[in-house]
Amino acid sequence: MEKLKSKILKEAYIIDNRIIKVDHFINHMLDTKLVFEIGKEFANEFSGINKILTIEASGIAFSVATAFHLDNVPIVFARKSASLITTENVYKSKVFSFTKQIESTIIVDKEFLNPGDNVLIIDDFLATGNALNGLIDIANQANAKVKGVGIVIEKGYQGGRKRIEDMGIKVHSLANIKRIEDGKVVFEENND
Amino acid sequence: MEKLKSKILKEAYIIDNRIIKVDHFINHMLDTKLVFEIGKEFANEFSGINKILTIEASGIAFSVATAFHLDNVPIVFARKSASLITTENVYKSKVFSFTKQIESTIIVDKEFLNPGDNVLIIDDFLATGNALNGLIDIANQANAKVKGVGIVIEKGYQGGRKRIEDMGIKVHSLANIKRIEDGKVVFEENND
Repeated sequence: MEKLKSKILKEAYIIDNRIIKVDHFINHMLDTKLVFEIGKEFANEFSGINKILTIEASGIAFSVATAFHLDNVPIVFARKSASLITTENVYKSKVFSFTKQIESTIIVDKEFLNPGDNVLIIDDFLATGNALNGLIDIANQANAKVKGVGIVIEKGYQGGRKRIEDMGIKVHSLANIKRIEDGKVVFEENND
Repeated sequence: MEKLKSKILKEAYIIDNRIIKVDHFINHMLDTKLVFEIGKEFANEFSGINKILTIEASGIAFSVATAFHLDNVPIVFARKSASLITTENVYKSKVFSFTKQIESTIIVDKEFLNPGDNVLIIDDFLATGNALNGLIDIANQANAKVKGVGIVIEKGYQGGRKRIEDMGIKVHSLANIKRIEDGKVVFEENND
């Protein structure tokens, strides 16, 4: 997605040739117009979807925008810790966060994913793929079909895509970063 | 908002005359069509807004839908814990969660709230008002003006509204629960 790539080139902060900081339009402040354009890209790429699955918190906005362009399909967001209210009757998976260096449990109420569901998984980042693998694990537990994965920014050099494609699942990212060089992002060509 | 109240009456689970469980359309699975109708209600109620402030995770979807109906104003969502990436240069406030019985720190990067901002705060629930007070505290630290608070479901019997109105801030909730009686929700009349 050219507009996204161009915005990353112009506005992302690169720290230590390793961390890409896009807090100001992707995961702390949201450029709402861009969020809906991103949702439209995902909606155009996948069909036959009856439910979106994502993970709190940064996947939610992009899921809402995608659902808007997919006839308002419902969205399920996996939660990162069990609250007082939801502790039983849930699918669970463990996810190790590379950024935060902690392991957390993500949960989805068993009511909300069912056999026969055709699920599109949406997230803001794909790096090692741990969060996505947790979501796919949960969809598998529910015998739901994962029709595809839509990612806003992929860190291609961290290898997460292969683990998912090896399961036969289509991955579509809107900006795929090949490497970071001298504080600058270099994108994979032809990834969308 | 009649449609929301009617859905709560028909579909909410009431536990111990105390907990209202609306996970299946508000804070775990989202009824996307309803989310956008809620956003439209908030957009109609407030004017002169240039930024929406909310808190992860359940406030995000309603903020995206509200921003959609408010000329795509940007959204800032307060984060609940400091990640590896964002640890400095932030406004902070402490919030005690009545539901989870834990205190957490919410943060907003200082770049994202400024003097001159006219902020609409959006959240899914208003109960004791702790989360909202944290958000207002952060807006005050930034010398931003809080133009109003939009709440999807208010638990009127927990008294959170008064603390906010006493600061001169307008509160608009779409369903205000007066009490829970014999496992049934009773709404305040004329609250919207």
